[in-house]
Amino acid sequence: MIIPEIRYNLITRDWVIVSPGRAKRPDEVKREEGFEKNTIAYKTDCPFCPGNEDKTPPEIFRIEGADRSWQVRVIPNKFSALAREGELHRKVEGVKRSVSGVGIHEVIIESPLHNVTLALLDNSVVAKVMQAYKYRYLEIYKDPRIQLVTIFKNHGEGAGTSLEHTHSQIIGTPVMPPNVRNRMEEAMRYYDDTGECVCCKVIETELADRERIVIEGAHFVSFVPYAALSSFHTWIFPKRHAPSFGEIRPDELEDLASLLRTTLAKLYYGLNNPDFNYVIRSIPEVGRGTEYFHWYISIVPRLGKMAGFELGSGMFINPSLPEDNARFLREIPV
Amino acid sequence: MIIPEIRYNLITRDWVIVSPGRAKRPDEVKREEGFEKNTIAYKTDCPFCPGNEDKTPPEIFRIEGADRSWQVRVIPNKFSALAREGELHRKVEGVKRSVSGVGIHEVIIESPLHNVTLALLDNSVVAKVMQAYKYRYLEIYKDPRIQLVTIFKNHGEGAGTSLEHTHSQIIGTPVMPPNVRNRMEEAMRYYDDTGECVCCKVIETELADRERIVIEGAHFVSFVPYAALSSFHTWIFPKRHAPSFGEIRPDELEDLASLLRTTLAKLYYGLNNPDFNYVIRSIPEVGRGTEYFHWYISIVPRLGKMAGFELGSGMFINPSLPEDNARFLREIPV
Repeated sequence: MIIPEIRYNLITRDWVIVSPGRAKRPDEVKREEGFEKNTIAYKTDCPFCPGNEDKTPPEIFRIEGADRSWQVRVIPNKFSALAREGELHRKVEGVKRSVSGVGIHEVIIESPLHNVTLALLDNSVVAKVMQAYKYRYLEIYKDPRIQLVTIFKNHGEGAGTSLEHTHSQIIGTPVMPPNVRNRMEEAMRYYDDTGECVCCKVIETELADRERIVIEGAHFVSFVPYAALSSFHTWIFPKRHAPSFGEIRPDELEDLASLLRTTLAKLYYGLNNPDFNYVIRSIPEVGRGTEYFHWYISIVPRLGKMAGFELGSGMFINPSLPEDNARFLREIPV
Repeated sequence: MIIPEIRYNLITRDWVIVSPGRAKRPDEVKREEGFEKNTIAYKTDCPFCPGNEDKTPPEIFRIEGADRSWQVRVIPNKFSALAREGELHRKVEGVKRSVSGVGIHEVIIESPLHNVTLALLDNSVVAKVMQAYKYRYLEIYKDPRIQLVTIFKNHGEGAGTSLEHTHSQIIGTPVMPPNVRNRMEEAMRYYDDTGECVCCKVIETELADRERIVIEGAHFVSFVPYAALSSFHTWIFPKRHAPSFGEIRPDELEDLASLLRTTLAKLYYGLNNPDFNYVIRSIPEVGRGTEYFHWYISIVPRLGKMAGFELGSGMFINPSLPEDNARFLREIPV
């Protein structure tokens, strides 16, 4: 047996057992079914299709196309995890601690068409989705109750989608989640140690090594991290040091749309439209004292299952080599 | 809309949005199919069934029954995530850090019968499984390469099981996973602040409140945590302050077997044999300076899906009230 390698992710502090030999396990047979392209462009019972706007809560924001119809639409989540209205209270009662569940939970409908997904849209349409992200990101932070805004996408049933029509979600929480707090602390420690941003250092290494790069654009780069948590786990970073997604410039936004779309298309064609999640990791404030952080997008195809070991230890077992995954994706024509 | 509550878990630092209203979401319909009891006690092609012992790697440990046949059997995992033999090396190459993937990965076959699960076994049989856990736990720690031993169980396909025959796993890793490190740090901070073990304080509160208790035994107690991550998330704690599972006494082991079995049986009958994971969280060493930690078992039924928000933020959305879940489980007769 070749001895596998346990890799450490300096940005997230995650340890990953990279164990390509394990791919032979009985439950890790390759996804065999070909994907079926949904051919129905409008569904009468889909609340996100045009004509059904009255089935959703009142619209918050829209981007219009040439004919004045909407291209991208933002609405409150009908099944919001948090109450939009209400005051923030904190309770401390011995070991029981809580805050009131107030916050923002919205849905970004990415296209009027029912049968598309980001991977199949034009770059210019994806750029409109990114514009809607940026607008709502900045707006939600104006709410003084909000500590963190998380933008994310669930694609496919295995990734937790309940509605087929292509959409993303944005949640503003009145508490800082521990995952983000930990990453901030780690980045801060590295900055204090070295005077450098750990992400800038990782990007520099990836661009020099090249073997884990998927696509390099003018302003962004996508790569499979050295300690990828799972098969085809992919990161997209702005090359320019930038702590917060909110400060993305218009030319960068165009490049991000193109790079995100192309990366997703490589996953779509290469892996038969896999279920996936992505999330934008970003800190709220930009300014003095935030030089340590660098925002990015993490894409996690849901090819395996989190089991007891992962849940229990927080360590991951990746049954494939990040370098092999990156080469595979580079070679998929889009 | 009733304002949901965001609860903080003082032991794990997790924030959970407790949002019972959300249970109406389209993807959260109750599991309708009744469970089917597997009626085949022996399967000729199952590597864990008696008669097929030569299909597994050579046995490490067994507990025999009255007739000298095995009752519980421990073997190396055929698809081990780590190499059992090999030296531990550490590589530091700029931002790329790794250690060699050496360690121990074993399987505990819990019964010779193919058609059972812990919930359906006698307490005395479950006690034998606990004995095997303890024996291997202590043995694996004798290996100087090992930093942490994790004992866990995946039950059902949705929890990541690839083999139906009832079994648990034990992994000894040469690194300390961040999940465990974080919990140690938190417990240490609480101890330094207050001179008390945070878990002892939580157990005291749960035993006084009673509303989240599932079962109380002589030495152990099972309850739904105040900030349960997901529906029916259940913890089992020793009432006696004890940092490490390895120091469990024989009388405590009997009580643990009975309490674990009964808790699992309540999940089995109450929720139609749900997929679940459990893990034993414990620190390696007992002695001076480990007073701050308290070992426990965490059971996570896999009723929902982790989606982008959970993966991205590390926060969880629990669509049910922990107090309701506990009452439901208390009322299931076993």
